This record gives sequence, C-alpha cells and structure tokens, in this order.
Amino acid sequence: MLRVGVIGATGYTGSELLRFIFSHGGIELTYVTSHSFAGKTLPEIYPHYLNILEPVCSPFTLEEAAQKTDLVFCALPHGDSMDVVPALLAAGLKVIDLSADFRLTEAALYREWYQREHSAPRLLGKAVYGLPEIYKEEIKNTSFVANPGCYPTPVILGLAPLAERGLVDWETLVVDAKSGTSGAGRVPSQALHFSECTENFRAYKVAGHQHTPEVEQELGRLAGQKITMTFVPHLIPMIRGILSTIYLRLTEKLEEEEILEIYREYYREEKFVRILPAPILPETRNVYGSNYCDLAFKWDSRTGRLIIVAAIDNLVKGAAGQAVQNMNLMLGLEEEQGLQLIPMRP
Amino acid sequence: MLRVGVIGATGYTGSELLRFIFSHGGIELTYVTSHSFAGKTLPEIYPHYLNILEPVCSPFTLEEAAQKTDLVFCALPHGDSMDVVPALLAAGLKVIDLSADFRLTEAALYREWYQREHSAPRLLGKAVYGLPEIYKEEIKNTSFVANPGCYPTPVILGLAPLAERGLVDWETLVVDAKSGTSGAGRVPSQALHFSECTENFRAYKVAGHQHTPEVEQELGRLAGQKITMTFVPHLIPMIRGILSTIYLRLTEKLEEEEILEIYREYYREEKFVRILPAPILPETRNVYGSNYCDLAFKWDSRTGRLIIVAAIDNLVKGAAGQAVQNMNLMLGLEEEQGLQLIPMRP
Amino acid sequence: MLRVGVIGATGYTGSELLRFIFSHGGIELTYVTSHSFAGKTLPEIYPHYLNILEPVCSPFTLEEAAQKTDLVFCALPHGDSMDVVPALLAAGLKVIDLSADFRLTEAALYREWYQREHSAPRLLGKAVYGLPEIYKEEIKNTSFVANPGCYPTPVILGLAPLAERGLVDWETLVVDAKSGTSGAGRVPSQALHFSECTENFRAYKVAGHQHTPEVEQELGRLAGQKITMTFVPHLIPMIRGILSTIYLRLTEKLEEEEILEIYREYYREEKFVRILPAPILPETRNVYGSNYCDLAFKWDSRTGRLIIVAAIDNLVKGAAGQAVQNMNLMLGLEEEQGLQLIPMRP
Amino acid sequence: MLRVGVIGATGYTGSELLRFIFSHGGIELTYVTSHSFAGKTLPEIYPHYLNILEPVCSPFTLEEAAQKTDLVFCALPHGDSMDVVPALLAAGLKVIDLSADFRLTEAALYREWYQREHSAPRLLGKAVYGLPEIYKEEIKNTSFVANPGCYPTPVILGLAPLAERGLVDWETLVVDAKSGTSGAGRVPSQALHFSECTENFRAYKVAGHQHTPEVEQELGRLAGQKITMTFVPHLIPMIRGILSTIYLRLTEKLEEEEILEIYREYYREEKFVRILPAPILPETRNVYGSNYCDLAFKWDSRTGRLIIVAAIDNLVKGAAGQAVQNMNLMLGLEEEQGLQLIPMRP
Repeated sequence: MLRVGVIGATGYTGSELLRFIFSHGGIELTYVTSHSFAGKTLPEIYPHYLNILEPVCSPFTLEEAAQKTDLVFCALPHGDSMDVVPALLAAGLKVIDLSADFRLTEAALYREWYQREHSAPRLLGKAVYGLPEIYKEEIKNTSFVANPGCYPTPVILGLAPLAERGLVDWETLVVDAKSGTSGAGRVPSQALHFSECTENFRAYKVAGHQHTPEVEQELGRLAGQKITMTFVPHLIPMIRGILSTIYLRLTEKLEEEEILEIYREYYREEKFVRILPAPILPETRNVYGSNYCDLAFKWDSRTGRLIIVAAIDNLVKGAAGQAVQNMNLMLGLEEEQGLQLIPMRP
Repeated sequence: MLRVGVIGATGYTGSELLRFIFSHGGIELTYVTSHSFAGKTLPEIYPHYLNILEPVCSPFTLEEAAQKTDLVFCALPHGDSMDVVPALLAAGLKVIDLSADFRLTEAALYREWYQREHSAPRLLGKAVYGLPEIYKEEIKNTSFVANPGCYPTPVILGLAPLAERGLVDWETLVVDAKSGTSGAGRVPSQALHFSECTENFRAYKVAGHQHTPEVEQELGRLAGQKITMTFVPHLIPMIRGILSTIYLRLTEKLEEEEILEIYREYYREEKFVRILPAPILPETRNVYGSNYCDLAFKWDSRTGRLIIVAAIDNLVKGAAGQAVQNMNLMLGLEEEQGLQLIPMRP
Repeated sequence: MLRVGVIGATGYTGSELLRFIFSHGGIELTYVTSHSFAGKTLPEIYPHYLNILEPVCSPFTLEEAAQKTDLVFCALPHGDSMDVVPALLAAGLKVIDLSADFRLTEAALYREWYQREHSAPRLLGKAVYGLPEIYKEEIKNTSFVANPGCYPTPVILGLAPLAERGLVDWETLVVDAKSGTSGAGRVPSQALHFSECTENFRAYKVAGHQHTPEVEQELGRLAGQKITMTFVPHLIPMIRGILSTIYLRLTEKLEEEEILEIYREYYREEKFVRILPAPILPETRNVYGSNYCDLAFKWDSRTGRLIIVAAIDNLVKGAAGQAVQNMNLMLGLEEEQGLQLIPMRP
Repeated sequence: MLRVGVIGATGYTGSELLRFIFSHGGIELTYVTSHSFAGKTLPEIYPHYLNILEPVCSPFTLEEAAQKTDLVFCALPHGDSMDVVPALLAAGLKVIDLSADFRLTEAALYREWYQREHSAPRLLGKAVYGLPEIYKEEIKNTSFVANPGCYPTPVILGLAPLAERGLVDWETLVVDAKSGTSGAGRVPSQALHFSECTENFRAYKVAGHQHTPEVEQELGRLAGQKITMTFVPHLIPMIRGILSTIYLRLTEKLEEEEILEIYREYYREEKFVRILPAPILPETRNVYGSNYCDLAFKWDSRTGRLIIVAAIDNLVKGAAGQAVQNMNLMLGLEEEQGLQLIPMRP
C-alpha cells in the first residue's frame, strides 16, 4: 500500500483528511505532523480519535517526510506552505498542497491578494489546479497538485460548462457566496466566538476576498479571456457548508432545456457533481460530510438572467475530500475510493 | 390614551406587536383577536406573557373592533386581510395592515404573484405604503397604511437615495437576500422542522418570491420609471434578521465619498436608518430586537459595481416595529416612542 | 451476501440505517418500505440520496419481505411494530425491531407507559435486548432482537459495571438526560419548529418518560433486584447527541482508581465503549455520527456521590448503529463491520 | 436624577447593564469605564450602540468615580473587583458588585474555590447578598450589595421556600444545571469557538464549580444548618438562558397541592418569580431578555422525589437585571422600574 503523510494534521482540514484516509482502504497513513502539538498523540488534541487513530504528531522534517511517505498532503496555513513544498517536490514526493500558495500562477497577483511576497515564485504555474472534473488527465500525470479553495470550487464547477462554450457575458457576473464557520479554521477569535457568531449573519471582505483572483484565473482559462467577478462572501451560523448563488446573463438566447443539456453533458462522467432535477434546489445539508457538489439553475425570464445555485461541504469537496479525489487520480486508484459516503442527514 | 387593537395577535408578527404596545406608554391595548385561539388567554398560547399581559383572545367582530379601538393593527395572513380591512375602514378606524394585501396597487400584479383574485380591488392604491423614511408626510395624514414586507424594507431603504437621483442602472440590479426563520411564521412544516433547518442553508423561490413586485413598484415610483429586479431569498438557520446584499452599476461616475454624502443627506433626519462608518459592515445581531436598518456600501473598482449591504430585524423594522413607527406618525406621537431600544446583544 | 430489508425506511432511524447498510460491505439491501411514501424513490423524499441510493419505496407486504430478505430491520413507530413483527418471525426471518414494542417484558408495564394494549403479548420477553456489550452471546444466538431505546443505552452502559457487582445504592439514583432533536423524529410540530426550538432549552416528560421502565427493567436484571429511577429528559437545540448525567451513592467505599478498574475490566473487549482518561469528559460531538458510547466519572467527595457522564449519538449507538452491530452478531460477521468510522468533528 | 456608573462596561454583563440603564428612566448614566478599551467610544467596541449610546470609555480612577456617580455597578472579573470595591465604599459610594468577590463570607472558602487569596477579607460578610426576593429589606438599607451568581440565582429561588421551612432532606439534594454560552463571557477560547461549541453538549467542572459554595452558604443560612450540594453544570449551544433541574426528598410527606401553596405564598409579593401552572414547564426562551425566574415542580411518586425546574436569563436575572432590581431598592425606586419587559420570543 502507498504511504501517505499529512503535514499540518491538526487544523480542521488536516483532521478531515485523517478521517478520509482512515477509512480509505487503499493507502497507509505513515506520517502525521503538527507544529503546535508536536509530541502529543492525536486524541490528546482531538478526543474523538480515542481508540481509533492515535499517532503521535511529529514536528515536520524533510528527512522524515521523504523517508516515510510516497505522497504528502500539505495542510499548512497559507504562507507556510510555500516554504515547505519546494523541498518536498525536490525529494521526489508527490505533493497535494491544500493551501492557496500554489493556486495562482502569477507572483504579482499573490502579492496583491495575500499581502506577502511569494517565496517560491519559480514554482508558480507548475502545480496542476486540482479540480478533477476539469483537469482529470493533468492530475493523473502530475506529482504536484494545488488543491482548490473552498469558495472557488462550487463557483468554477457551476460556471465551467458555460464558460468553456463562451456563453457567459462576463460583464454581468455576480457571485454571492455563503459559508459555514469551519472554513475560517480552528483558531478562536472574537468574530467566531459562539456568543457572537450564532444567531448572526454578516458579509465580510466585500469585494476583497483572496479567493476572487483564483476564480477569475480558472474561469478565464476556460473562457479563453481575462475576466473579473464581483464576489461577496458571507458567514452562516453553522459549521459546514458553502452555498453560492451565481448571477449572469448569457451571450446567446438558450432554452432552459438546452442549458440543462449542456450541464448534463459536461458532467456526464462525473460522479461528484449532481445536476438536481427541478424543482429541487441545492441545500448544504444534502452534501453534509460528503464530496458532492450539487448544482441547479433557474432562468429569470423577467430580467434575462441565469441564476445558478451550487452547494458543497467546504471541508470535503472544498478541501479534504477533493484532495483525496486528487490523490486517487495521482496514484491510479479508483477516483471514488474512500469517498463513497451518503451525506449525513439529519 | 388612544385605544389600539391587534387583529391576529398570535402569529409571530402579532405577538411582536404586543411586545411593543405593552411598553409603548402612549397607547392602550384594548382589543386582541385570534381565530385559532379564540377564548384562550394569551399566556395559554405563549407562556412568556404570564403575569405580564393576559388578555383573552376574542374572535374578531367588526362591532367590537369599532367599539373598542381607535386604531387597529391587522396582522392576519395574506389573503385574509383583504376580507376584513374594507369594513374596518368603513367603520372609521385607522388601519395599519401588516399583510401584503394592500401593498401592490394593481390587481393584476396581485393575482400573478399571490395566485388569487383580490377581493377589494377598489382599495388598491388607497393605502399609504408605510415606509416612514420615505412617505412620512403621507403617513401622518392617512388613516390607512400598508406596512411594507420584511424583504422590501431593507432593499428599498438601501436603494432609495440613489433611485431618487436617477443614479441606478436598473438593468444591472441584483438583490441577494437572506432571512432568519421567523419570517416564515409560526406554522410548523417539514422545511422549518428544527432537525432539518439547523446546520443548513438554502435558496428558495428563486426569482419567484412575492415580495419582488413590491420592491419594483416602490423603487420604480422613486425612480420614475418601470424597473425589474433579480431577487433571490435564502433561509438562514437563525430566528431573527434579514441581511440583503445589493449589486448594481451607477449611471454616472461617483467617488465613494460622494455616495456616502448622498446617503447621509438623504437619511439626515431619520433615527432608524444608520449609515455605518467604514469599515463596519451590517450584521443582523447589531439590530436584534430593534427598529434599526443598518446600511453600508462598498465600491468594487475592479468591476465597476456598487455593493450595498442592509440589515434589519425582520420582526421589528420588517414588521411590528415599523408598524408602531407608522402608528406614532398617524396618531401625532413622537415617531420614536416605544421604539427606543438598544439592540439585544449578545 | 445476506439480504436485508428496512421496514419504515423514511423516518430518521430508517434513513440512518440505510446510510450504514450502504457502506457496510457484507450485506445487500434488497427491500425498502415506506407507508407514507410508497411508490416514490428515496431521493424524491431525501434528495441527499440522489445518484447514490435510489430504491423505490414499497408498501410493506409480508410476502415480499419473506421472499426478498433474510433479515429485516423494523423501524416503524411504537405501536405499529407489534402488528408486523409476529408475522415476520413466523415467516422465518431474522428481525431487529427498533421500536419500543418488544423491549419491555411485561404487558402491564407496556400498557402503563405507552397507553395502549399490547397486540402481541405472547412475544413479550422473547426478544433479546440488543445491547451487545451485555448480551453478546444471546444476540449471536437469536433471530429476534429488540433494539434498545436511545435514552436507555448510555444509562445502562454507564451503570452496568456497578449494577452487576451490587455497588449501586439504588435509592439514590438520579438520571438527568439531555437529547438533541432528532430523537423526536421527522414529524413537524410546534415544539420542534425551528423558531421555537433554537436558542431554547427545556425539560419534558419530567418523571414520566416511557424509557424509564426500560432502564429499570434492564438494570434490575443486572442488579438482581427491582429498582426505580428518577429520570428527567431535556431537549437540546442541536440535532444529534444524548448526554446523560447519572448521580448515585455506592454501597461500599471505593477509591476512584478502583472504580476505574471496574469499568476498564467490564468493557475490556468492547470496542464501542470508551472509558475516557481524566480529565477528559464526554461531549456529544466526540461521538457525532459514530457508534461510540463515551463514559467518564467523577467522585464527589464532599457529598459522597459518584457522578457518571455518558454520551452517544442517539441515531447511531442509540438506534441504527446499534442495530447494525446487533445484525453483525446475528449474522456471524465482525461486530465492527460497517461501523468503523471516525466521529465527524467539527 | 441619581448618577450611576458602570465599571467594566464592555464585558457581556457590563454591556447588558448599559442596556437596562439606558431605558430605565429614573437614573442617569454618568461614568463608563473599560480597562481594555479605554479611550474608545462604545460603538467602536459594540457597533449596535451606534447613534444610541456613545460614551467614551474611561480608564477607571477612584477620583472620577467618586466625583461623577452616586452608585456604581462593578462588573469587573472575579479577583479584580476586590481590589477596587473597598475604595469605592470608602469614598461613600453605593456599590453593587457583580463579581463573586464579596458573595462568600469566609476567606478560606474563597481561597479554596477561587484559588487565590482574598485581598479585602475584612469586607467579607459586609455585603448584602443581592437576591431581592429574600433579602429585600436588607438591600433597601445597605450601600453594598454582592450580586448573586448566575447559577445560584435559580437554585436558591427554587429551593428557598422549602429550605426556610426545613422541608429539604439535604442529603438527597442534586442540582443539574445547564447554561448558555454568554455566561462564559466575551473572551474567545477553543471551547467557545463556534465550530466546536454548536451542535455539542457537555458537562464541565463536574462537582467542582465555584458557584457551589455560594449556593450552600445561602441555602444553609435559610435552612439554619450547614449543607452540601452535588452540583454539575453543562454548556448548551445557545447564547442566553440557564435551566436547572433540582432533585431532592422532603423531610415530611406533602401533597403536591400543599407544596404549590408553599411556593405561591412565599413569592406572593414577588413580581419576578413566576410559579407556572401545571403542566407548563420552564423554558429558557420564556424568560429571554427578561428579569423573570420561572419555576415549576413535579412530584415523582414512584421514587419519592420532588423535582424542581427553574429557568432564568443568565445575563438578566442572573446578572444585570438583578443588579438593576437591587439598585432600585437601594435608591428607593420602584423595584420593577426599567425591568418591565416582555421576554423576547421568538
């Protein structure tokens, strides 16, 4: 069995990776690191692992990573990943990086949106963008994947079929996104304090969220042109789930049935994208704990707009599940292995 | 003291009216009706009223209403109100109707969006639309107010300053609205069952919500032209609060400071609209239990869009609080009386 | 592969059974019934099953059950099950009944606590009480299991080691239990309406809950004497999880370390009961979605009381997961098959 | 009008005090201090105060307090209060201390449960314990009140009528308490991080919570004997509300009707204690945002136990509301002034 490691295992994304790796069946977990909790066993940090999965968290060293693993998931915070990944690749490991550090292909864009200088600019553009529904062949043949952000995943999946056919009037694109709190991570803060976060709804980083250029880059690539997007994220008082509502005008007049056919055709082979039959609309609970992206759309004939609704579990299809899907492709395993779960509901 | 009644007092809106009437100070509650709970005391239905406010709920009769009250709040469901209001007016009472029945001025529009024939079409257009920040003088001089819907209130308040000056490019308008569950009322249903509603987020009535024509009518009136709006509501797993994110392009180039000045000027005299100083953004908890509408905006220079964020408590500024504000104006009381509350937080 | 059916598949317990059966690996789902939704496919009722598990729900008939299955889970409401189970047994099927109908062994007790006459009294006492940690051998050798209630499971597991050794002073026993809302099922009601259930906490059925005699019967059997228990359940504003706090005095003086040793010894072979190392206390999220029962205890030296805290996921160890565990034993499979999941957190 | 100050105004208790002071009508807020936010206006910290209440937060100085106020609420953290209160009293101010520092009357007990040495031991026993339903006359005649803890309030109110009459068999007393998160305050922590706190229920400080000796002291005083109590608090995933379930045996046999009469008699003059008529049970939402303590009880004839259920809003009757009630008494105002609010529901 192939040996995999998780670098930065004690954040929410890292921990969710462990959940999927544990029940995968085709790989072996051989290396678990944590900077903050080095020397502790996993259940000392997260008691739910007790009696199930009890590795000691190591401090990260390149030597150990190289010696103990064939593939590593790098689940470090943005900005830390770029200091580690180059050496991992140089050591011959397959790398799936879940941070934002290798998604953008231009150093200037990274600097602008992440407010820091990239430390490994020569690697920018070298990673395959890990959206398997779009870059499946590239993922199968690479050893370096940049796993997509949680917000970009449903937006790109929701627009790709139209983008590739030149059907989106990009000037009209508005994306209103809503996320549960787990996307903000494990570190406590005033804004995520339970008493201030429950029974509350708010927008944040209005027209300034760092996932914006990632979506623009990827949709621009599909569309073959430079595009911009108005993007506003919001925080929902719940743990898991992203729902994005996407507004646009088409470049040509299409019947609703034709649009549906375009989507069905585009995702015909894709297990993890579900085009919902009308009048069913995506709800985050219908993908809870699973790797699905649910899509539906509605034509607003009064205003001539197409409205696309897309939902994922931000920790699964928006992070750890998608990373495992990428790993399966990179290792020549079945794409669905370890991800065939019924969403948990209620 | 003036005598007021609440017709349909046991729905959420009716009950919230009682909360404000109880502590108002300038009026007397003399008549409380309920169809479903006639004959019961209020605490038998809602134990939180115990020892505080314990009227017996009467079945509604015109005679009693006319005899016992000077002004009535009609908090009946949509469709029921139009069968009762004409007689109340004919009896010489002042009426504030919280249903949707007298907001639209065209019978055809009512039929189209509410799927029923209007039973009092000659009264359409006779009510003053009860948004005090816009129609203050008309409200002071009428005996018939149609209290605005919960979704329309923040959208109209958020757009009015621009609409009146012809600054909105209406073709570009998109409104993405999110509401807590209390807006859906007191009647249990599968979709509002706790186990299916918490830890979930969803869109509903996409481009088909009945509040759409109400907003279009009112903004069209301010703009002096017919307009349409793309409108998508969503359900948030929390009780109270609406937050709307409004996207548009302007018809002329303005500096952010100029826009701010337009808003400040427009609402200079208005106590219940707060233009938040940047970088503070509206959050529903900041208006929890209060009659405020919080507004902020952001210019997205990359896409040339203005983004307006507006938040209210749907049961207060979106229903009962606004109705009391209207009552104060109709009765010649201080506009703020009974509404000067600090939002409850946490 | 053995063929299993789920009778009453569209309640929360039935649906949770399907989730575990789907990923079990050692059995085949061959029969799915629903009274309310007969003729519909599963995704028409629960869209989260779309593209994953799409059986048509049949109306229940004995013939079909007998022909299509080797073992059935009966997930009907209390009172309905007793009308169906006798025939299933007579047809030679193995039966795991998840209702309360066959847990009590005395018809008089059933009448008293469930307010109806039992329709199959001669079967009372014939089912093995399906708590594998206590009745493992009996379960392996029976074709008829009465699956324990959600509240009784953590209470019995929390007290069994002491009960068997005669260490509990039963006169002093108080059980204060708290449950998420999914235990109340799928049918909407005023009390479970989101707007009335969230941001609220309450006790219900104080000293009158129907699970009380079930616990008394089972603990009495272990203790070899008749016992009574003061039992108060409460409703928590969350979906999944039961946490019970158990108060008692011991019949003899023991050191905390001795008590710990008794628990560790009692559950030494049991995978699904976790005795937490101090100072870790059970939390419902640490068993979320899993079949674990987490236990901890604390000696209150000031008052001479032992306090036991026990937590489960009410839909898993409190219902469907425990039923699958029973099935594994009845079919000679590995006890843990299909249940080796890491709890979902966050 | 009398001038009042709030020392430590930016914690949850301090902020809730401001809410009640603002709408009180009979007092003037003249001094607001904050250590962490000195120099900032209130809305800079809590935007919900914008346009309503905008004082600058001062750093605390004795001179300013003495000069600007007649009465101060001291809402500092436990341990800080004892360093400030002696000087405030010496300066001739009336003081209501909301910390735990002056509730216990014995320095040894304070040291044991709060793990620090008391810095003003000679003042221990000098404050009146501010539970107006029990110590009304003392409160009217003192200038120094120790405001009760949130957990002790409903427990003492729930037991006082029986305690005074010697009806409680103290050996049998068990108190199982549940609180919303606002009781844990404003400072973020891992345990109160939204993603870890919602959809979770847990016990904490089992048999070790610092409010235990406070209850024992006060009930012991009423009972005229030394008593101990088994006390376990739990955390509910909601903001506001405490519900306590109290288990005991009586020292003599009483009919349920006799017990009811004892409670009704005891609280006959008390506006803020509501004895609920059966079968209504306390729910935290029925006291949400209000100063009520709701009580009900049930006789468990099977086990011979009385079960008392008590609910309050921890920030109101458990802190700020009770403090205002005490202030009213100390200043000779109507006891209910500023507290006559209908609980907010839904």
